[in-house]
Order: sequence, then structure tokens, then C-alpha cells
Amino acid sequence: MRVLGIDPGLTRCGIGVVDSHSGRKLKLVDFGAIRTDSDAPLEERLLQLDHALMDWITKVKPDAIAVERVFSQLNVRTAMATGQAAGVALLLAAKSGLPIALHTPTEVKAAVTGSGRADKAQVAQMVMKILGLKETPKPVDTTDALALAICHHWRGSTTEILKSAVRTEQTRIKKLKANSSQRAGRLK
Amino acid sequence: MRVLGIDPGLTRCGIGVVDSHSGRKLKLVDFGAIRTDSDAPLEERLLQLDHALMDWITKVKPDAIAVERVFSQLNVRTAMATGQAAGVALLLAAKSGLPIALHTPTEVKAAVTGSGRADKAQVAQMVMKILGLKETPKPVDTTDALALAICHHWRGSTTEILKSAVRTEQTRIKKLKANSSQRAGRLK
Repeated sequence: MRVLGIDPGLTRCGIGVVDSHSGRKLKLVDFGAIRTDSDAPLEERLLQLDHALMDWITKVKPDAIAVERVFSQLNVRTAMATGQAAGVALLLAAKSGLPIALHTPTEVKAAVTGSGRADKAQVAQMVMKILGLKETPKPVDTTDALALAICHHWRGSTTEILKSAVRTEQTRIKKLKANSSQRAGRLK
Repeated sequence: MRVLGIDPGLTRCGIGVVDSHSGRKLKLVDFGAIRTDSDAPLEERLLQLDHALMDWITKVKPDAIAVERVFSQLNVRTAMATGQAAGVALLLAAKSGLPIALHTPTEVKAAVTGSGRADKAQVAQMVMKILGLKETPKPVDTTDALALAICHHWRGSTTEILKSAVRTEQTRIKKLKANSSQRAGRLK
């Protein structure tokens, strides 16, 4: 199974592609960073990102896409740009019809290093160890994207099955409530 | 000229369509709010929004699209959702090839009411007056989207011409700098 990890960003969007072979053994396929022209209007930058992401999907043909779920940034201006980039990545992933999972930075850190509070250097160290790399992939956004892909291989499927079960149950409860209130309406 | 105003949001995305006739006279064409299923996964909601926005563009055939530029929200979680919705709207607008403009809430308020610090009620009041409406368009997001479209009619083109001039000048300066540093390199 091949996972494309996306660490969304407008200035630099990290990409990491990781394969799993025979169970838990993971192998690096490719990595990179998409940069958009900071002088270009916002909508053009989002279009550049969309095209570059599409090129990656076409090139590496992933079986699943993992996107970093970001919601706790102190700088609101950066948060908006990251949100816009994440929106473009998620929309493209949804259009591709591939399974998508969102993982929080804490989940990624915990999956890769064993601690949700690990720093960037520790994450980079573990990514190198897990994938058997001799050098740290650069820029740092690519390490985060690789960590995301690794996290998805190790916990993605279980998380998705759980979430899907929760959603089915919620829909069932909603239907039950709707039915019972309809019946109550008839009894009045 | 017909302007489609989009007040981006994931739970509720406001839409306002306004025509200009013979100079500054404005006329309401249509308005509405796009809602996405809050139980659905994030990527599915973005896809729902993308489809609904595409339907609006196909239906009203605007000459320009105005999107609210949001960056100052206190709640970072809401900011991310708004950012993702804005990303989808801007990407779709860019793909449609139509001219796009971003206006800040302050610019919109100032254009419509004369004050950048006007409250929602004052904006709604002025939107009704400008478009000659007898009732307030509901929900409130639609009023904001209509105000955005009005703002674009009144100041959009000028703003865009200015921005474009600034961008051309920046590119020119960059090229000049690059040339002079190349020359300096040769002189060493």
C-alpha cells in the first residue's frame, strides 16, 4: 500500500510518499516540497498548489492520502493560509476518490516517536530510522509529511474504521430519534 | 456587469448576486446560503461546497467573483474551517477564469455604510436601501455576501487596477535588482 502524506502550506507544502511491504515494513518512495509564488495573487497560488498536488497524485499513484489536520496555530494570518492550502489539498483528495485521513500533529508525533510532545528533531531522527535514511530529508516540511505517511500506515486504517463506526452509529441514533418524534407527533 | 459575492463558511456560505446597470445603479439578482452536512467528513463537506458553488456560477453566470478576505478571527478552529472554505471558493473562482477580488470586512463595511466599524444591523439596513429591498435577506450571511458584491461594484475595479500596478512595479524592481547583482558578480 502506498500513502501520500501532505503537510499543507501555501509558502511550502510538504510531500512524503511511503510504501508498506509485507505488513509493517515501510519504504521511502519519494518526497518534496511544493512552493508557490509569494508575489502572485492568492487565488493563483492556490491554483499552483492544486496543479502541483495533482502532478504528485498522477506521478506516484497513491492508495490513500493523509493530510495534516491543523487547528492550533497562534498566528491567525498563517492559520488562514494553512487552512486555504489544506482546503485545496482535501478537495483534490476528495475528487480523486481515494481514501483520505486527517491526522493531528500530536497523533503523528505519538505514532512515530512514541510521544505526542516530541520536537521536530526527534521526529526527523525517527523518520530517518524507520525509513533507513542516511540523511535528513530537507526542507523540514518533507520530514513532517513523511512522518504523516508513516503515521497513516501504522494507525490510519484503524482510526478510519473507528470513525466510520462512530458515524454509522450517530446516523442510526438520529434516525431512531426522528422516528420516535414522528410517532410522538401521531399520538398527540 | 454581474458580481457574485461569496462569504466563505463551511457551516453556512453566504451568496449574493448583484448587477450594475447604467453606471452606479445596482440591482439584486439572487441570494442564498450553502450549507454542508456537519456530520459528513471534512473533505466531503468541501466537495459539497465546491459543487454548490459551481452550480451558482453556472446558474448566474457572473462577470466577476468577490470573496471575503478573512484573517482576524479569535477562534482558531473556526478560522481553519473558514480558511478551508475560502480556499475552495478561491480555487473554483481561479479555475473558472473569471476576475476575482478579495475584500476585507472593513472594506465592505466602509463601502456600504461609510464606516469600517459599522455593525451587522447597519450593514443590513444599507444593503436593503441600496438594492431597494423591503425585507432583510436571511440568513445574515447572505446580507454580508450582498454587501460584498455591492462593495466590489463600487470599488473592486479600482482596487484591482491599483494592486496590479503595484505587482508590475514589484516585478520590475526585482528584475532590476537581479540584473544589477548579476553585473556585480561579473565585475568581481
